[in-house]
Amino acid sequence: MTDLAARLHHPLPVLTPATKTLGDIEGLRASGVRAGIKASGNPDVALLVADSLIDVAAVFTQNKFAAAPVLVCREHLQKTGGRARAIVVNSGNANACTGDEGLQNARIMCADVAELLGCSPDEVLVASTGVIGVQLPMEKVRAGIRAAFAELQSGPEAGRAFLAAIQTTDAYPKEACEPGDGWSVAGVCKGAGMIAPNMATMLAFVATDAPVDAGGLPALLRDVAVGSFNAVHVDSHPSTNDSLFLLATRRGTQEKAFSNALRDTCRRLAWLIARDGEGATKVTTIRVTGASSNEAAQAIGRRVAESALVRTALFGNDPNWGRFVSQVGNAKEVTSVAGLVCKVQGITVFENEAPTRFDRAEASKAMAAEDVLLELALTEGSGAGDILTSDLGYRYVEVNAEYTT
Amino acid sequence: MTDLAARLHHPLPVLTPATKTLGDIEGLRASGVRAGIKASGNPDVALLVADSLIDVAAVFTQNKFAAAPVLVCREHLQKTGGRARAIVVNSGNANACTGDEGLQNARIMCADVAELLGCSPDEVLVASTGVIGVQLPMEKVRAGIRAAFAELQSGPEAGRAFLAAIQTTDAYPKEACEPGDGWSVAGVCKGAGMIAPNMATMLAFVATDAPVDAGGLPALLRDVAVGSFNAVHVDSHPSTNDSLFLLATRRGTQEKAFSNALRDTCRRLAWLIARDGEGATKVTTIRVTGASSNEAAQAIGRRVAESALVRTALFGNDPNWGRFVSQVGNAKEVTSVAGLVCKVQGITVFENEAPTRFDRAEASKAMAAEDVLLELALTEGSGAGDILTSDLGYRYVEVNAEYTT
Repeated sequence: MTDLAARLHHPLPVLTPATKTLGDIEGLRASGVRAGIKASGNPDVALLVADSLIDVAAVFTQNKFAAAPVLVCREHLQKTGGRARAIVVNSGNANACTGDEGLQNARIMCADVAELLGCSPDEVLVASTGVIGVQLPMEKVRAGIRAAFAELQSGPEAGRAFLAAIQTTDAYPKEACEPGDGWSVAGVCKGAGMIAPNMATMLAFVATDAPVDAGGLPALLRDVAVGSFNAVHVDSHPSTNDSLFLLATRRGTQEKAFSNALRDTCRRLAWLIARDGEGATKVTTIRVTGASSNEAAQAIGRRVAESALVRTALFGNDPNWGRFVSQVGNAKEVTSVAGLVCKVQGITVFENEAPTRFDRAEASKAMAAEDVLLELALTEGSGAGDILTSDLGYRYVEVNAEYTT
Repeated sequence: MTDLAARLHHPLPVLTPATKTLGDIEGLRASGVRAGIKASGNPDVALLVADSLIDVAAVFTQNKFAAAPVLVCREHLQKTGGRARAIVVNSGNANACTGDEGLQNARIMCADVAELLGCSPDEVLVASTGVIGVQLPMEKVRAGIRAAFAELQSGPEAGRAFLAAIQTTDAYPKEACEPGDGWSVAGVCKGAGMIAPNMATMLAFVATDAPVDAGGLPALLRDVAVGSFNAVHVDSHPSTNDSLFLLATRRGTQEKAFSNALRDTCRRLAWLIARDGEGATKVTTIRVTGASSNEAAQAIGRRVAESALVRTALFGNDPNWGRFVSQVGNAKEVTSVAGLVCKVQGITVFENEAPTRFDRAEASKAMAAEDVLLELALTEGSGAGDILTSDLGYRYVEVNAEYTT
């Protein structure tokens, strides 16, 4: 065995702060405060408020255990036709698996914000993240909401205060922005692996002051989510609370550049989540091409990413073509593996139904990178898709096995 | 961090040898020899020969990358209508991803045995296990076949020589038997996790001298496989070579007790494979009930077993109800999680949409066992099914990440 202790150390990525945050989006104010929900005393209530009723689209978890805030958001967005004044967020407690009391608590959070803003409770959205199966400490939450309201500000610091208050097990803050012509897209998110005791994982908030066609936002956001947040595979465990919100403060004729800026922002945020998988040392993009459809391509990539054997090989910088291609053969979306080509970091390791005579040491060295590309080319059609996955190392086991005992 | 080195140590199960082996089945002779295919010098060619043409049923991998021996067996069983004189096996090389040359080599193995026996090559079956993507060293294989033929014997030692020669990364020999009234079912298998460099995983050989209804064997074996070998989830990676053979040396009116003996034998062999997952400390039976169908129940159980989060929790003896139930919510075979009850070792940890007030320390202690039962009861129908899974600990990462680098 090599030095195991050394292998438990995983350097974090080197990040530069985003030039714009949610607080820089025209028409938005943000805040984050310490309400005492988290035992650590870290910030745990966040508020994002628009100056007027704005357009909001959202994508939520497909887990049948949808948390109370998700149920309330779906209801509110339905009632308002996709408009809102504010989003209130707490971390430290996911308000999931909390039954009717949890649903009432989510409604109270919206009503409290609505009262402060003088709007309808339906015009307030809510998100929670943290432990599941425990009721929210509502006195602390409600005091936190009042404090966050008093703190509302615009500008980069306000956006970062919001971001700080939505984090749970994140190893680093996750933010991204893309500039446009007189407008911006800015986003923040939280999410790493699901660490005991039962963290609900992913929340993302993206906002823009670009002129947008409000009617097209929900479909655009769903499409963008497919290639970003829904492409992240950390541990095949979509959570009860996963939510992605898009806030647009201005209506108008949508610029083509906006879709691209939104896509790039969401992809960057998704990368940051994959990179923060417990003990992850890199992000691997599993790119499947030549599938029968784009959906099939992503499903095949997900099948490959689900394999603990594949993910440990990625951790070990092992160009293990057998694990990669045999998992393609197990995907039910694949009807023929004839002609399959597999490349690792651009190096062809499998073609013509057999491994190539590639240089293992060279391929292994190429895999010791912050970004790894694993390409799997089928010959069934023109479907293509990416999945982003973290690797699986000792620290993953340590973090996930040794919580309670 | 606790003492990681100590946690890399995983005691193996305490096993008692089976009272009967393949060599004890009336009408069968077996052998195993060292042919030099394995660099280790361990036995690597095995032969199982019937005194006359007997009934054989088989279940093979569903991976689209089926290895050459699997393709040849399917063809031969088709031609003979499920009859054979012999099975020849090699370990050390899976003859998978080897193209036309590999197919020819599998045919040569059958032809060599046929010539020695004086039968048709179609009446010989073949299985291989070991590294993939490398051609068989045919001179060694053919010399090994001649040596194995010369060594054919009946009795327990012959059966164990066969078993020794089919093993690859197995930490212990895997055998099981069930006695009947004047007959027996005896079986052996090989299989653990898929260790680099690309081991093809599971081979099982079960034989009986019970009087059987030959026509019903294929359907019976498929059914038995569902509840045994197909219920094993070690790392969601069915291999190119997985094969299960059932040899029946006598025809007659099938006794009801035979099906049960076959089922028990296969279940025991499947348990032995799950227990030999790399670094596994236990076997967890994930029992899903109340699903819409038996197939749905197993699919849901498999979804739970696929989660690295679930398997690390099992390793850590962590009664992590959130991971268990949320993964049920992610299974596409589930339409409603209302009424879901989750029990760990008989202790109810989740019901009425919320965790119970169970004693975590007590539940954790109960999970520190060789056999763990995780029950997930839905209320959608009467479908039920078990999945057997190994847990995921440090040693799994060590074995799977640190092979080449």
